[in-house]
Amino acid sequence: MRTNRILIKNVQMDGHPTDIYIEKDTIKQIAPHIETEAETLIDGTGKAVIPGLINGHTHAAMTLFRGFADDMKLMPWLEQKIWPNEAKMQREDIYWGAKLACLEMIKSGTTTFLDMYQRPSITADAVEEMGLRGYISAVCFDGFDPEKADSCKRDCWKLFDKQHEYSRRVQFTMGPHAIYTVSGEFLRWIHEFSNERGALIHLHLAETEEEVNFSKKRFGFTPVRYLYKLGILSPRLVIAHAVYVDNDEIRMLADHGVKVVHNPASNMKLASGIRFPFVEMKRLGIPVGIGTDGCSSSNNLDMVEAMKLASLLGKAWRKDPEVLTAQEMLDAATAVGADILGLKAGRIAEGYLADLCLVDLKSAAFTPNFNFVSNLVYAANGNCIDTVICNGKVLMQERRVPGEEEILEQAARRAYDLVARS
Amino acid sequence: MRTNRILIKNVQMDGHPTDIYIEKDTIKQIAPHIETEAETLIDGTGKAVIPGLINGHTHAAMTLFRGFADDMKLMPWLEQKIWPNEAKMQREDIYWGAKLACLEMIKSGTTTFLDMYQRPSITADAVEEMGLRGYISAVCFDGFDPEKADSCKRDCWKLFDKQHEYSRRVQFTMGPHAIYTVSGEFLRWIHEFSNERGALIHLHLAETEEEVNFSKKRFGFTPVRYLYKLGILSPRLVIAHAVYVDNDEIRMLADHGVKVVHNPASNMKLASGIRFPFVEMKRLGIPVGIGTDGCSSSNNLDMVEAMKLASLLGKAWRKDPEVLTAQEMLDAATAVGADILGLKAGRIAEGYLADLCLVDLKSAAFTPNFNFVSNLVYAANGNCIDTVICNGKVLMQERRVPGEEEILEQAARRAYDLVARS
Repeated sequence: MRTNRILIKNVQMDGHPTDIYIEKDTIKQIAPHIETEAETLIDGTGKAVIPGLINGHTHAAMTLFRGFADDMKLMPWLEQKIWPNEAKMQREDIYWGAKLACLEMIKSGTTTFLDMYQRPSITADAVEEMGLRGYISAVCFDGFDPEKADSCKRDCWKLFDKQHEYSRRVQFTMGPHAIYTVSGEFLRWIHEFSNERGALIHLHLAETEEEVNFSKKRFGFTPVRYLYKLGILSPRLVIAHAVYVDNDEIRMLADHGVKVVHNPASNMKLASGIRFPFVEMKRLGIPVGIGTDGCSSSNNLDMVEAMKLASLLGKAWRKDPEVLTAQEMLDAATAVGADILGLKAGRIAEGYLADLCLVDLKSAAFTPNFNFVSNLVYAANGNCIDTVICNGKVLMQERRVPGEEEILEQAARRAYDLVARS
Repeated sequence: MRTNRILIKNVQMDGHPTDIYIEKDTIKQIAPHIETEAETLIDGTGKAVIPGLINGHTHAAMTLFRGFADDMKLMPWLEQKIWPNEAKMQREDIYWGAKLACLEMIKSGTTTFLDMYQRPSITADAVEEMGLRGYISAVCFDGFDPEKADSCKRDCWKLFDKQHEYSRRVQFTMGPHAIYTVSGEFLRWIHEFSNERGALIHLHLAETEEEVNFSKKRFGFTPVRYLYKLGILSPRLVIAHAVYVDNDEIRMLADHGVKVVHNPASNMKLASGIRFPFVEMKRLGIPVGIGTDGCSSSNNLDMVEAMKLASLLGKAWRKDPEVLTAQEMLDAATAVGADILGLKAGRIAEGYLADLCLVDLKSAAFTPNFNFVSNLVYAANGNCIDTVICNGKVLMQERRVPGEEEILEQAARRAYDLVARS
């Protein structure tokens, strides 16, 4: 059996043309002229290479609720629109929702995502088939009820026992939903369990003022301080949102090696809060990635758009056009995202995983091309991605993903059936 | 000679399939099944029709400076990067910059724009060739110098005397740059001149705190009050930005029929200010459109993205997810934009100008399609536009615009030559 080898010829990298040679799942060589055999030859002329984008926080299968309800306050939206329909979801709904999400991510250059949703093994199946990487969280809600916590623990054991059934592209993580839905005791158990299993913990935290008020009232502390008191701040912890954190809390996060993912579209659209302290966190060395959040709140999974939103929002509220530069946004969405997940990816470098995209430069957004990174972040959107390679396999070429028509059709049908179902 | 007739079959409109018949420059008939001869037949299956988008504020030829300098404070950016290069611009630079802008607008569904730039007749030539509509402002700067004002007036006369050389798609307007670059006397002259000529006045106003401070110090009033004292608030006046206006000033604008254009991307990226009072202006009946501003500050001309940014930014700073709905954004970018310009367009209705786009629904952004307007504004971007018709002529079909390769090539070459030129 032949190994899978890909040779990309004459692609732009840091403003210069180069060849890139991929063997199995790894970038083997980067040099101006590589002469070698390869099963797949890709002409990179008129294209630029970037690392595959890393979506640090999403709920993949929620693509099924895209546009189902917008312009509403959080609680009526959840109680009237989302929760009643989520309760009706069957295996096939989650499966096609996750397939649609994977398709959308591939089409906009994302090769890896950190997910949280009900019945995670179904999303894992979709990821396995679609060829990208998923860090898929066992979502935990106990509602402060020890019996529910026990049932949830059994689900976690069961899920993690299935880890060996999947390729290395699928990694299970722990997904305690939030401090207002998961008890402190259960959070501590999750912390211990994740240590034993070597898994990440993926948690919504400090997303809204309501959450901060709840935390102070119920636990006597703001959210980060509450986690500190519980003793569960650790390098395994990845926090989504972290909009409401003061300087002392940022210091606590830094001291304990906690990672953070910023979700500008969802923070803006749900009006959760805009003062995400990117600059302060970066100054203390906290790795900050970028996420889209789920499609029912922020409506798409386009990480190119998310980079622009993160930069513009940060400049806007700080009244400082010099901060959150295009390069910082691209780093957050690639190298930093990979570091957060402990993945040797997010960089175009020899020895790194072959997770990369080719960007089509023949468009208005890249004309003129004084500064490729500026054009990518500020002028382009996810449609600029021409080719996607993940784990050394071509997932998209010339914007075509095998099977995409069927996914669009099936996902739409499941979505309409789901909301019509009594 | 045959008239130009277009028949669009089976296109989605307000969620139902319909046919649309166009004769010359006008939408003649909208009905479920139209049987008639037409020179051009378009299959609308799997597509939705929307009015052509209206970009209420831009500087078209500045596409040439896309990505040339970002993440800088306003004054060093202007003084070190933009102005020295603008001073070197030759006819061909402006021409190819404007052609590139027109191409980018067509590719993202814009059929009409309100422009302000040096040597407006060159932009007019580009618009004439490219087939869209341009409201092109005679930019006026006198720097409080009466001699410069006189020279500027001569330019205005000359430009307006050329109006008859252009088709009705090109309309000249007056473009006093701002209250800190144009004297009160000259603003009054412009007001009178525009009344005589029946032209709009296109003015940057209340964009930054610095401008407000300048206005108070130099004129003794905030910007809107200053215009009121000058007696030049009128229904001919279109203000770009208007971020810094208090409730009394909003009332003044409403009482005098002044129109406003919101530019969310540029306001965020330059950190000018984010509290644009869309809700308060709409409550008093002020027509509020949306603009992208020029590509050197906001980096693209994608009005689909601009609708999303306007909505998300408004929800975010107001802490209210219910305001600035997707439908309000689409209205602002179409019907309201047309009303601001006094154009019988921006609506898909019989008797209106045939300025419209077909949106390709076969993509993840429109799957599922519970709510087309939500998907358009929140999930899609300008690449969803498949077909563009302006003034009853097809400008783009299946995303192909005749001559686009040459425009990309020439514009890039001019841009690199320009900045290299001493």
